[in-house]
Amino acid sequence: MTTRIAVATEPGYEVLVGAGVFEFARELAAPRDVLVRDSGLPEALGWLETSGAIALPPGEEAKDWESLGALLGALAHEALDRSTTLFVVGGGAALDLGGLAAALYLRGVEVVYCPTTLLAMVDASVGGKTAVNLPEGKNLVGVVRQPRAVFADTRFCASQSEAEFRSGLGEVLKCAVIGGERGLESLEHDAAALAKRDAAALERTIARCVRLKARIVERDPLERGARRVLNLGHTFAHAVERVAGFGRVPHGVAVAAGLGAALELARAAGVLRDATLPARVRRMAKRLGLPASIDALREEFSLALPPRKLLEAMRHDKKALAAQPRFVLPERAGKVLHGVACEPSLVERVLAPKRKRAPGTARPRRA
Amino acid sequence: MTTRIAVATEPGYEVLVGAGVFEFARELAAPRDVLVRDSGLPEALGWLETSGAIALPPGEEAKDWESLGALLGALAHEALDRSTTLFVVGGGAALDLGGLAAALYLRGVEVVYCPTTLLAMVDASVGGKTAVNLPEGKNLVGVVRQPRAVFADTRFCASQSEAEFRSGLGEVLKCAVIGGERGLESLEHDAAALAKRDAAALERTIARCVRLKARIVERDPLERGARRVLNLGHTFAHAVERVAGFGRVPHGVAVAAGLGAALELARAAGVLRDATLPARVRRMAKRLGLPASIDALREEFSLALPPRKLLEAMRHDKKALAAQPRFVLPERAGKVLHGVACEPSLVERVLAPKRKRAPGTARPRRA
Repeated sequence: MTTRIAVATEPGYEVLVGAGVFEFARELAAPRDVLVRDSGLPEALGWLETSGAIALPPGEEAKDWESLGALLGALAHEALDRSTTLFVVGGGAALDLGGLAAALYLRGVEVVYCPTTLLAMVDASVGGKTAVNLPEGKNLVGVVRQPRAVFADTRFCASQSEAEFRSGLGEVLKCAVIGGERGLESLEHDAAALAKRDAAALERTIARCVRLKARIVERDPLERGARRVLNLGHTFAHAVERVAGFGRVPHGVAVAAGLGAALELARAAGVLRDATLPARVRRMAKRLGLPASIDALREEFSLALPPRKLLEAMRHDKKALAAQPRFVLPERAGKVLHGVACEPSLVERVLAPKRKRAPGTARPRRA
Repeated sequence: MTTRIAVATEPGYEVLVGAGVFEFARELAAPRDVLVRDSGLPEALGWLETSGAIALPPGEEAKDWESLGALLGALAHEALDRSTTLFVVGGGAALDLGGLAAALYLRGVEVVYCPTTLLAMVDASVGGKTAVNLPEGKNLVGVVRQPRAVFADTRFCASQSEAEFRSGLGEVLKCAVIGGERGLESLEHDAAALAKRDAAALERTIARCVRLKARIVERDPLERGARRVLNLGHTFAHAVERVAGFGRVPHGVAVAAGLGAALELARAAGVLRDATLPARVRRMAKRLGLPASIDALREEFSLALPPRKLLEAMRHDKKALAAQPRFVLPERAGKVLHGVACEPSLVERVLAPKRKRAPGTARPRRA
């Protein structure tokens, strides 16, 4: 089965979701086009012609200034001209980096995305955001530029590690909340099959997330306003990732915890209108094996994540206006507000550890 | 006097040309905006608030990957948010670099250009091209993104060195040929006053070049076709600059010589319809103190510029399609063709030294 989703940005493109769509990408590639691949991909997948491919460092490491320079140097070294299309095969970091290189090389060549992780399929592959990290923060450098096409082959999900796959589920959970009652119900319906990586459930779920994101970025491609709702949970997640040290907590897992924190803050700030939503999201997170609060994340990863440090990291978030963090908060499923300013005391309360035992300290032993 | 030129790109903007327009730029700047300045600018100009300004290395040195990374790092270090506008004050290299940094920082903040050289006023400031160089070639990395406004203050021209000012005149000459009969006549009329850097002649000339370039980039902002005529002389010029070693021959001077070579090739290839044009351009070049052929440039700079090396460099030009150089050739003043493929033997003939004495070798002495 293949699901096709048209994204009506300028220019527009199609996202193909399903088992086997990677073959369509291969068919589309001309002899002079270039394959850029995450070197962490198992060769055993057998779908990749590796000769002539440019290999990127695996994971988030790929997304720095030096790697971007090295990739651009490799394209220039091959003397590729403007008619070249880059086929980028990999996770979100590879897509972010490869997409930015394509946008910059000769002031822009075409790019086709072949995401190989659930997270990249539901997130990085749609909307045209590209980026690399600076030492000062994540995604500080990039452009918004739409790809020529996206091929999200669900077969890649089968070879993901449990930790990686779970990271994707964090973004799926976020999309369900933004998607409203239907989004939540669909995920509730598919959760068990998803956890088993059932192909049909994957295709339905990815397609739902892509469609949701497409409708939002069509209205606001440059993130001037409405698109910011997609950052639900991300102000907290970025702070967590930063304080924990990038790479320690998988992005989607941090998003799930950040979503929990956003719900808590929404309640404390009087923004939340549906009092049943936090418990419902917690139940769903549990079924998907995700932490539903920063505290749960502290415990799982044995991290202290001091509130003061998280607050400081939030001030560095690039969406902060004049260093005053703004929040994306749900009013109810399907209605998410952005740019909400909150009392620092409320934010601190949400960030404060609620459990008595500090992570990493031993339980007092009985004599 | 001030001349205002509207550029109807998406988004549109205005270019202000005249003595004193830099003050308007200063008035436009908000307290949180950032000044990025060419460190080669004489402090004595007195128009620059240097406190808090980010200084770029002077000249073409600024335009490399490391400098771009350093500039982006400086912006991130100051934790500037998306509401910031960069005011970039400097020559073409500073504008290219600063414009690219603005396009990339937080996926794009606004930029205002204040060109301080004649070359930058007539070339880099209009059309939205930004770039840095790679070791593999010039301008290989960049984006096309329009500025918020451009302030071309002719007073800056007064403090330029003769060599720098002359480089600007090379692009002015190129514009005159593209501009057709009226362009040529206007330049013939203003040539003497221009050489004396007369303010009114400068304003008229810069405004003509900006208007010409604006009309062309409006039709083809991304250089898919028509905009390529602006590269008249540049395939040769880039090859010369590359073989000579970047920085040795000022860009506009190389363009003047490249324009001469393009006219020669246009004649040899049977493209040229106006047989009087080469002599007319040569006369004008002489009045402006510019070389009108690659040979003249060889002599002036004591460079060998071997044809084989120039040819090789052309294959690296980013406009080359599958390593086959294409040329921008004048049919007559005001009618310029682009994408013209030429017999390699014709190109070699144009590149071959016509004077007997090899540059750098001594004239045989009489016994």
